[in-house]
Amino acid sequence: MKVGDQYIHEFQFTQDQVQGFADVTGDNNPVHLDADYAATTMFKRPIVHGMLGASLFSKVFGTIFPGEGTIYLNQSLNFMKPMYVEEAYQAVFEVKEVNAEKHRAIITTTILNAEGKAAVTGEATLMNTAVIV
Amino acid sequence: MKVGDQYIHEFQFTQDQVQGFADVTGDNNPVHLDADYAATTMFKRPIVHGMLGASLFSKVFGTIFPGEGTIYLNQSLNFMKPMYVEEAYQAVFEVKEVNAEKHRAIITTTILNAEGKAAVTGEATLMNTAVIV
Repeated sequence: MKVGDQYIHEFQFTQDQVQGFADVTGDNNPVHLDADYAATTMFKRPIVHGMLGASLFSKVFGTIFPGEGTIYLNQSLNFMKPMYVEEAYQAVFEVKEVNAEKHRAIITTTILNAEGKAAVTGEATLMNTAVIV
Repeated sequence: MKVGDQYIHEFQFTQDQVQGFADVTGDNNPVHLDADYAATTMFKRPIVHGMLGASLFSKVFGTIFPGEGTIYLNQSLNFMKPMYVEEAYQAVFEVKEVNAEKHRAIITTTILNAEGKAAVTGEATLMNTAVIV
């Protein structure tokens, strides 16, 4: 892993996944689950839980890029725009800093909507324990 | 909501909830799901996904404190110590700043383990749309 390395992950969340996330986390705010209620809000349609979007960062870090042995040290999350159910998004990861001695890296984390606008921005610090355990 | 207001939420996550979170997010890193694998890591036992812990912040903000109409603007998360499956934790929320004009507040978010040590620290900025929609 070196500065500038990039990984892009395409995804969308179905209403069933959003319901599943609500069930497991207890976050059943109706703006995520109830189209009639969502229609009365500024969002107009059901939106994906911000933390479900952020969970995609965790999934990618833990299972794909960089994958097994990754430990999450921190994550900042700026929720810039709503993410809608059943719309296509891209999560873009880019290595910003690497500290080889400490086995750590800082990676920027961005979710872009279909128009290329940022829905979520932030960055993560990861440690690779695969090399030190 | 005023500076210094506090809300404390007790919780724990079962292995079934952790499995459910893995299923819905796709984050099936075996350190969360497989006790035999976890035993080979520095953690020794299955750990809760950091983002599942963080999802508790979202649940509380959206449904309890302050509740309906809350919009999440940002969240920082520092994963200080592992959270273990089926152990008791406290999420502690404290209002740090209030901007009444912008209907915004900054709230510190901390998860404490049974020894009172911080497993997760960070802060959130929220906007209350209930008053402006």
